[in-house]
Amino acid sequence: MINKDNYCVIMGGGIGSRFWPFSRKSLPKQFLDFFGTGRSLLQQTFDRFNKIIPAENILVVTNDMYADLVKFQLPELKEDQILLEPTRRNTAPCIAWASYHILAKNPTANIVVAPSDHLILKETEFLDAINNGLDFVSKSDKLMTLGIKPNRPETGYGYIQIAEKEFENFYKVKTFTEKPELELAKVFLDSGEFYWNSGLFMWNVKTIVDAVEKLIPELAEKLKAGPEIYGTPKEKPFIDVRFPSCPNVSIDIGVMEKADNVYVSLGDFGWSDLGTWGSLYDLSPKDERQNVVLKGESLIYNSKDNIVVLPKNKLAVIDGLEGYLIAESDNVLLICKKDEEHAIRKYVNDAQMKLGEDYI
Amino acid sequence: MINKDNYCVIMGGGIGSRFWPFSRKSLPKQFLDFFGTGRSLLQQTFDRFNKIIPAENILVVTNDMYADLVKFQLPELKEDQILLEPTRRNTAPCIAWASYHILAKNPTANIVVAPSDHLILKETEFLDAINNGLDFVSKSDKLMTLGIKPNRPETGYGYIQIAEKEFENFYKVKTFTEKPELELAKVFLDSGEFYWNSGLFMWNVKTIVDAVEKLIPELAEKLKAGPEIYGTPKEKPFIDVRFPSCPNVSIDIGVMEKADNVYVSLGDFGWSDLGTWGSLYDLSPKDERQNVVLKGESLIYNSKDNIVVLPKNKLAVIDGLEGYLIAESDNVLLICKKDEEHAIRKYVNDAQMKLGEDYI
Repeated sequence: MINKDNYCVIMGGGIGSRFWPFSRKSLPKQFLDFFGTGRSLLQQTFDRFNKIIPAENILVVTNDMYADLVKFQLPELKEDQILLEPTRRNTAPCIAWASYHILAKNPTANIVVAPSDHLILKETEFLDAINNGLDFVSKSDKLMTLGIKPNRPETGYGYIQIAEKEFENFYKVKTFTEKPELELAKVFLDSGEFYWNSGLFMWNVKTIVDAVEKLIPELAEKLKAGPEIYGTPKEKPFIDVRFPSCPNVSIDIGVMEKADNVYVSLGDFGWSDLGTWGSLYDLSPKDERQNVVLKGESLIYNSKDNIVVLPKNKLAVIDGLEGYLIAESDNVLLICKKDEEHAIRKYVNDAQMKLGEDYI
Repeated sequence: MINKDNYCVIMGGGIGSRFWPFSRKSLPKQFLDFFGTGRSLLQQTFDRFNKIIPAENILVVTNDMYADLVKFQLPELKEDQILLEPTRRNTAPCIAWASYHILAKNPTANIVVAPSDHLILKETEFLDAINNGLDFVSKSDKLMTLGIKPNRPETGYGYIQIAEKEFENFYKVKTFTEKPELELAKVFLDSGEFYWNSGLFMWNVKTIVDAVEKLIPELAEKLKAGPEIYGTPKEKPFIDVRFPSCPNVSIDIGVMEKADNVYVSLGDFGWSDLGTWGSLYDLSPKDERQNVVLKGESLIYNSKDNIVVLPKNKLAVIDGLEGYLIAESDNVLLICKKDEEHAIRKYVNDAQMKLGEDYI
């Protein structure tokens, strides 16, 4: 039951450094195959949505510099399904562009917007929720997001507080909350009212365009145009001129937190944003001493609670380490405490300052 | 003042695993350039002796499997200056062969026998001692060894106890001692009578041949022959047949500890046998937190007393480690406590058992 009005926008322009040195500026996280499955996170995201959305309705928005990577990893995409941002902005300009692009092609489109670099373990439940959500927004002018049932007081995620139930799993949203301190996260967890903000959205194309035009008019005025621009050879030159002057604002802050027609669909999808090495550690199979070896060969002695990520065929011999991240990729080896990974940004900065672009 | 009767025998057949993964079975320690000087330990040894000994009088004894490595690293050597053992024995068969080989060419030769993989920092003092020693043995039937003035109660070296002085720095040897426990090593150090055994020897060719024939007759009977064999095309086939049945005995145990004409020349030459990562750490320049980085780039945070050895151009970011060895070479990364390096032999065995020859 594939609905030709359903579209998917995959956001794949990030250059996050949290997985450095495994992720590099020239090859960020979404293009990596963390678990050795043979498919990158971007490819997995495409594969997942392609089960319910026609391939020709799937768009990838990324940065100019990743054009070749996306084409290489997703040869299924035609040229006009890859939207290339000339400069890095935030999610609101990305989503606004994709929405105007789709509107010009199909004014009754329903859209799911998804990050390119998240992990979903329970795919059937996830796709059911997406289908239900798209069906819901096709019939109403609601802005939908996906809320994840929390299983721990995670301080690395934003939370969504729910209000009254609309029907089934659909709730009106009361508030969006930024990443909380641990004490507050525990209160959230116990309350049963707070869900993790997945950063995944569903809406009808007219609903999101209306919302952007109403709530971020300074963005809409830069990108608003019709079929005389979007879907024609004029689109990319138009974007290259207009996009750099768009405001740097997220869709959460620019639209979701301000709109009064925001709903959330709740579920448990085995979801992770794979935001940190720690989250990867939590998700991965462990040996009897709680060590995780994601790639490469290893001989581990007198060690526990470590996560080891190596190039294929590399052997690590580790003796006497507890709670460390040992990550090697290309020309960089990183050894630090697993819970000190917030320092990675500092390492990357220092590497760039002292050694130049070769190591970042 | 180069004496054409002076010869040097460099012993370069070892396959020690103590520097794994930096040293490999296919590329052992003597062929490596530990300090990034551009010359391997073997090459440095050759360069050093070539200042006082004619290049054509320098022999390298090694294993068949390292023939190409020696030829590549020392193109100065002619084919007949590289003695290729068909199988690994110990130092006595190696030295006996080299001695018969030299005897056939020059019955009045004086020989210095040296390991290929030691470090000498005070070269002038060292070469003076060698010249004096060779002069001494050219005029007397003494077996000479080089004793190093100890600067710490090292438990990794053998010791030589001296008896009465012969003249200048030359002393008669009272006893040879195996590696002592720490308490005994402290007594040795305080006594002023004990010197480190450098494993470097000097003697007249007739003196050493006589000593081998008298003290290890079962070895001499295998290798004894004259110019009808040695220095002719018959030499290598002769050795290939005879050498494997030679007794596996060291020159220290087979000759030096038994002979009564053993003398030692004393000195301080900035010498190290580079026997362990720890000795390399001790010798190397350190940063203000006592970290040693021998090769590669590094960013080191909250860490002290580590030794880091990486491939050229590799960057290591290290945060929160104290007293570790971090060594990477080719397809192996080793992280272990610096003072647990005796376990390296176990790591190598385990790597071979579990993963095969690719990693050893």
